[in-house]
Amino acid sequence: MSSIITLTSDFGSRDAFAASVKGVILKTNPLAMIVDISNEIGPQDIWEAAFTLQSAYCHFPKGTVHLAVVDPGVGSGRRPIIVVTESYYFVGPDNGLFSLVYQEAERIRVHHITAAHYFLPNPGPTFHGRDIFAPVAGWLAKGIPSGNFGEEITDYVKLNIPATKTTENSIDGHVVHIDRFGNVITNITFKVIQPLLPETADLNTISVNLAGKEIKGLKKYYAEAAPGMPGAIINSSGSLEVFLFKQNARTALSVKRGDTVRLTVTK
Amino acid sequence: MSSIITLTSDFGSRDAFAASVKGVILKTNPLAMIVDISNEIGPQDIWEAAFTLQSAYCHFPKGTVHLAVVDPGVGSGRRPIIVVTESYYFVGPDNGLFSLVYQEAERIRVHHITAAHYFLPNPGPTFHGRDIFAPVAGWLAKGIPSGNFGEEITDYVKLNIPATKTTENSIDGHVVHIDRFGNVITNITFKVIQPLLPETADLNTISVNLAGKEIKGLKKYYAEAAPGMPGAIINSSGSLEVFLFKQNARTALSVKRGDTVRLTVTK
Amino acid sequence: MSSIITLTSDFGSRDAFAASVKGVILKTNPLAMIVDISNEIGPQDIWEAAFTLQSAYCHFPKGTVHLAVVDPGVGSGRRPIIVVTESYYFVGPDNGLFSLVYQEAERIRVHHITAAHYFLPNPGPTFHGRDIFAPVAGWLAKGIPSGNFGEEITDYVKLNIPATKTTENSIDGHVVHIDRFGNVITNITFKVIQPLLPETADLNTISVNLAGKEIKGLKKYYAEAAPGMPGAIINSSGSLEVFLFKQNARTALSVKRGDTVRLTVTK
Repeated sequence: MSSIITLTSDFGSRDAFAASVKGVILKTNPLAMIVDISNEIGPQDIWEAAFTLQSAYCHFPKGTVHLAVVDPGVGSGRRPIIVVTESYYFVGPDNGLFSLVYQEAERIRVHHITAAHYFLPNPGPTFHGRDIFAPVAGWLAKGIPSGNFGEEITDYVKLNIPATKTTENSIDGHVVHIDRFGNVITNITFKVIQPLLPETADLNTISVNLAGKEIKGLKKYYAEAAPGMPGAIINSSGSLEVFLFKQNARTALSVKRGDTVRLTVTK
Repeated sequence: MSSIITLTSDFGSRDAFAASVKGVILKTNPLAMIVDISNEIGPQDIWEAAFTLQSAYCHFPKGTVHLAVVDPGVGSGRRPIIVVTESYYFVGPDNGLFSLVYQEAERIRVHHITAAHYFLPNPGPTFHGRDIFAPVAGWLAKGIPSGNFGEEITDYVKLNIPATKTTENSIDGHVVHIDRFGNVITNITFKVIQPLLPETADLNTISVNLAGKEIKGLKKYYAEAAPGMPGAIINSSGSLEVFLFKQNARTALSVKRGDTVRLTVTK
Repeated sequence: MSSIITLTSDFGSRDAFAASVKGVILKTNPLAMIVDISNEIGPQDIWEAAFTLQSAYCHFPKGTVHLAVVDPGVGSGRRPIIVVTESYYFVGPDNGLFSLVYQEAERIRVHHITAAHYFLPNPGPTFHGRDIFAPVAGWLAKGIPSGNFGEEITDYVKLNIPATKTTENSIDGHVVHIDRFGNVITNITFKVIQPLLPETADLNTISVNLAGKEIKGLKKYYAEAAPGMPGAIINSSGSLEVFLFKQNARTALSVKRGDTVRLTVTK
């Protein structure tokens, strides 16, 4: 059995942090296959880590261990935890990083990691990614049962996730992420939009307001939009996204995470 | 057999795009060894992807599957393809991304990927890298014959590759890439220079004009150039390159991709 | 046996340099597991490479081959070398890159790589990372004895490593690195501090002067520092570090590598 461990962090790729974590994993579990989800999360940006992890984790094989370390409270009272879902394990600090996992998974079990014999000897207070989370992920991927690492807890930390507000013919939401291409991703999902659509499900009945611009209709693919004109689309994660074909919507529209967006349906 | 799959894309390393592709590959083919060529290609920059892929692909073991996704036309009519050469497989969109492979390979076969049972279920129109190309690369690396994925085609897309123009004692070319170090790479190869050289093959008979500067002679290695003085060299891919030792020729000479360069031989 | 090879370089992750090195390694040794320590070292910054390698190498399993290529002198007279310690192999140019390894390891043996039959055929003078170091690392990880690659040498190059100066109650040192988070790392280690501390080992007896600021006491973990106030801490490598909790100490204090720092103990 090849055991896959993914890594999501704000370690960057210039310093040796991520490599130290990988070295410790391989010392614990020489057969682990380590895959970076991202080490370029903004420093201390727990929300971005939660969002990025959510975009990728479900595409990995059942049994994958997802290690995530954005950990400003390292060394303080915040607990190290393992989250067990139907298909995956998650290892990291109890600071809300796994909030979107809690929201999506059907069944969940959370363990407070306390079994110090699975840690590096003499773990320090400043780099639990290396001293605690890496060896725990390695052992977990080797088949050690999650219960061996510590007691189950139920009072784990959840982020306040920005909610949408739906009326008869509109949905108010927020910008939750802007990607490398400058595409502006919102928390309005197609699941929430669908009940508002007319029976014909005509996408031209939709219009989107963002940053003072009104965008009419939804596109099916990016190249459908006219050059220089913002388009709206349901993206590969099922969320409403605003884009400019071959351009950067973030800079063109001057939007940032947290900005409000409204979708309206004209029947 | 370990099956190697490389990845060249404009996904960046901050978002979860590349990781989602890798997750799907590993779901399809848990023994795949995935190696990034680059995920930092400029957004939608098909030429840069073609160039970067060309610099690396031939260094991988025979049988490697090279997955490349710079795909502004995703979801539109552009076809997904597999390119088969004597030594490698290439998987990606039919938008010219493999033009330099077509130019170099002795024998080539191109298949239009249509066999949807190799795709993820319900592939969307915005992320074929994840929904179509990743599982196809995974199956291909597992040994599924390329013919199983779709019919052979001959009208695949080729980029207009900038050509050089040779006279009796000069070659006109272009800047085709500038690397991390600020080294300026041209499309003038040593193969094209060689016939112009005198019998002694004296490299001092060569001079290079770029950005209004005349550079006399070719260096053998970087440290040979005087501090602050631009040098010319045949680089590790066999192409004429202009550099400044331990400095950045791009900024020092204010050059950009597409700029003209002339090499002259004085016999 | 899985053979691990790490890579530390200034190749960047946009160009194909690192991938070409990995391709050649896998051609030589298809079972190698390649882990990046960093490819984002500043161009030609040998010190940064030495420091980054030192932060990570000891966390890898015994027998790991650490390949490091920051190599401005490539093609000139500088020698290619293998360094053998009790636990690891190091492969790269003899330009001081391994100075911190020489300092830390108990026993050391250095070989000048000359056995050309382990190189790529016709190695060029501009990319020894690909043509010489990659295949040598691959063969070494496959079990070829280090002595087979060339004669032992003793006159290998060592960098001038910035030293600390200790008086009865103070230590003068330097900033040796600033990490992604803006944390300012010095060459003053806890080993050097400890003899100066009173018997109670009270960390409040310590104060740190950096960039005209006096920082009183040492924190145990980052979250202990008041918002906006610089704190001092012994970091995960055992070195004195100055930080701002959830902020960037580099920009807040305007410090740079090489700046002086003084630690004082008040008994």
